[in-house]
Amino acid sequence: MLELIDLRNKNKDFELDNLRDRELKVSKKVLDSVNHIIESVKDKKDTAIKEFTTRFDKVFIEKFEIPQETFKECLEEVEEDFLKALIEAKNNIYNYHKYQKSNGYFMTDKDGVFKGQRVIPLEKVGVYVPGGSASYPSSVLMNVVPAKIAGVSEIIMVTPPTKDGVLNKYVAAAAYIAGVDRVFTVGGAQAIAALAYGTETIPKVDKIVGPGNIYVATAKRLVYGIVDIDMIAGPSEILVIADENANPDYIAGDLLSQAEHDSLSSAILVTTSKKIYDKVCLSIQNQIINSPRKSIIEESLKNYGKAFLCNNLEECIKLSNRIAPEHLEIMTEKPMELLDEVKNAGSVFLGYYTPEAVGDYFGGTNHVLPTNGTSRFFSPLSVDSFIKKSSFLYYSKEALSLHGNKIIELAEKEGLDAHANSIRLRL
Amino acid sequence: MLELIDLRNKNKDFELDNLRDRELKVSKKVLDSVNHIIESVKDKKDTAIKEFTTRFDKVFIEKFEIPQETFKECLEEVEEDFLKALIEAKNNIYNYHKYQKSNGYFMTDKDGVFKGQRVIPLEKVGVYVPGGSASYPSSVLMNVVPAKIAGVSEIIMVTPPTKDGVLNKYVAAAAYIAGVDRVFTVGGAQAIAALAYGTETIPKVDKIVGPGNIYVATAKRLVYGIVDIDMIAGPSEILVIADENANPDYIAGDLLSQAEHDSLSSAILVTTSKKIYDKVCLSIQNQIINSPRKSIIEESLKNYGKAFLCNNLEECIKLSNRIAPEHLEIMTEKPMELLDEVKNAGSVFLGYYTPEAVGDYFGGTNHVLPTNGTSRFFSPLSVDSFIKKSSFLYYSKEALSLHGNKIIELAEKEGLDAHANSIRLRL
Repeated sequence: MLELIDLRNKNKDFELDNLRDRELKVSKKVLDSVNHIIESVKDKKDTAIKEFTTRFDKVFIEKFEIPQETFKECLEEVEEDFLKALIEAKNNIYNYHKYQKSNGYFMTDKDGVFKGQRVIPLEKVGVYVPGGSASYPSSVLMNVVPAKIAGVSEIIMVTPPTKDGVLNKYVAAAAYIAGVDRVFTVGGAQAIAALAYGTETIPKVDKIVGPGNIYVATAKRLVYGIVDIDMIAGPSEILVIADENANPDYIAGDLLSQAEHDSLSSAILVTTSKKIYDKVCLSIQNQIINSPRKSIIEESLKNYGKAFLCNNLEECIKLSNRIAPEHLEIMTEKPMELLDEVKNAGSVFLGYYTPEAVGDYFGGTNHVLPTNGTSRFFSPLSVDSFIKKSSFLYYSKEALSLHGNKIIELAEKEGLDAHANSIRLRL
Repeated sequence: MLELIDLRNKNKDFELDNLRDRELKVSKKVLDSVNHIIESVKDKKDTAIKEFTTRFDKVFIEKFEIPQETFKECLEEVEEDFLKALIEAKNNIYNYHKYQKSNGYFMTDKDGVFKGQRVIPLEKVGVYVPGGSASYPSSVLMNVVPAKIAGVSEIIMVTPPTKDGVLNKYVAAAAYIAGVDRVFTVGGAQAIAALAYGTETIPKVDKIVGPGNIYVATAKRLVYGIVDIDMIAGPSEILVIADENANPDYIAGDLLSQAEHDSLSSAILVTTSKKIYDKVCLSIQNQIINSPRKSIIEESLKNYGKAFLCNNLEECIKLSNRIAPEHLEIMTEKPMELLDEVKNAGSVFLGYYTPEAVGDYFGGTNHVLPTNGTSRFFSPLSVDSFIKKSSFLYYSKEALSLHGNKIIELAEKEGLDAHANSIRLRL
């Protein structure tokens, strides 16, 4: 079920192209449709939003905004166990992310020079929360809590309306607990357009975050630059490094927890033990027999499920660094000893008792992570995703007369005459 | 010369669309050409690079790499005054940016939980340095110094060859001083493609930074995701807030230092004093008479030069926040008193003796800044541009058994059965 690639005792290399080429291709039809939606919302604002909501969500809505009292009421409607777990998860996320808050700095130089960097929260942020059959309260927490810590003034959530035009109760409870300021039941590309350009009722924001379907993702890509966006989440992946003492059932369970997302998901085992590989394959077969998501899992494993055999753990980590997975589990006796060698991974799960699901829901680290090999250069969503920096510089008259000629020298070498002149005038 | 918009004593609003709509449109022809170049380089690597260099740079080059000794030798060839100024600028940039280096953090929780965030430098970074008639040693310093501080292992510079196939001596001197590891005389879209995909001689990098012409910018946009890129630099702008005591010649000089860049540049005066406006216009006319870049300046001012009259400085700042300029000069008696109100600006230049050119070349703050209104959400280039973060999480067996049921509860509400099961297996 997992294609085996044996990299032991060989100079054999493995081409990553097949694993990388998982991006959902945007068809011309989707692109045209999204472009049309964006232009319509830019032009006709709320009128367009109502039209698209009627057409796509099959529900006519006159007033999109859900008052805070309404989503506060959902706290009463959800099961107590769920609410307790949700609040504890929120606290863990808060406590982990609060250390990411950074300060500006300031420095002085001789002759009356001072300069520095300020850290300024984004003013308004839009959070997209997908609707449909499933609901994702965990996604609300992961996107909103860091924005709150950053100091964003207004967090605006948009989510497709349910068939009766209201809000999913689990999502509503998460929005209230996380501290969302305003909620609108608008979804799809029209919601992204509204947040990017503003309508009579929906405010224009500075950044849009949150996952969505291909229409939402395409819309985010198209409005990038008008507003900032988080990364475009690609298909998800897990890589499990396992030594010979790891429990094959745990490994199989964790690989499946990734494969169940969708057929583009990738689940990869990297191990030093052929025995472990054999047992994992067997366990996968046993575990999926009764899985409600069996067909998704089978397709995903067939296309993007792999297992690699390496000579030692060092080689395992090196291969993982090349693949640069979103989620990396290190199921070995002493996982901390390997952490320094891990260069490219969105989030690392250490030891036998930290399946990825702990981080997806509860542990406190963020589950919005760089996918598809981009952990080589991208970072998890964090408080930094909701701030911007701005530098400042002050030169006294004395400082400028002391250094002015050097600045003129540098400007002239670049042929920028008016730059040099702006200094010359003051000397 | 500067169109006047009087916002005093009126409910008059000003639409920013005209100022915003300055992006260089990428023609189908450019896009097709860049796509072809990228595909060729991906496919034929160095062979393609040689062909394109012969075709576009009119020079045949067998070996693209310039050995370090060669660019060290340029230190002897440049004028002493230039070299001194360059080294001092580099030291200022280093001293300002070193405070941006951030550390990871680590936290422990009850029952054997630990978690944290690591900060990891990017491994390889490519720096594009434009060629042509002008050379931009300052751009080398601004892009390379923060990458060095971040701890990037290998910094690879690419720059178009001069007609005799060698390196511009000022750029070479800056590269040596800044600490560039390897230099290749390759330019254009083919250089970007080489850095994104790697060739036999040019290494694949994790991120590409640095400005370039429309071909370079388009290539960067197309390889984004394969590698990270810095922002696509748009047309540049300056906004000067001036009180009645500001010197009109200084203001005019600074506006011109922006307008000389290109015809899409925008220079904006925001003032409380009609008298200042009149004098600035007069001074501009006097100053450009002998300017070698007169025609660029005239076109840029005609299209995107504006002056706004406001009732007071608070209104000036509010307008500036809406425009969100790349460069903001506050030419008032007590500029520090206004800084807190500034929410959107790439870099702020305070007082009468800090023209933008100080920051462009010498002061130490970075001159790679968010353009065209994007300082609402983007930041100056910094040490953070050359690192990525990675989180880690460890749960002990005890911690998982204590919290496992809550995680199962949350996963089940989202309908992700295998997620829940990966916990259940371990309990």
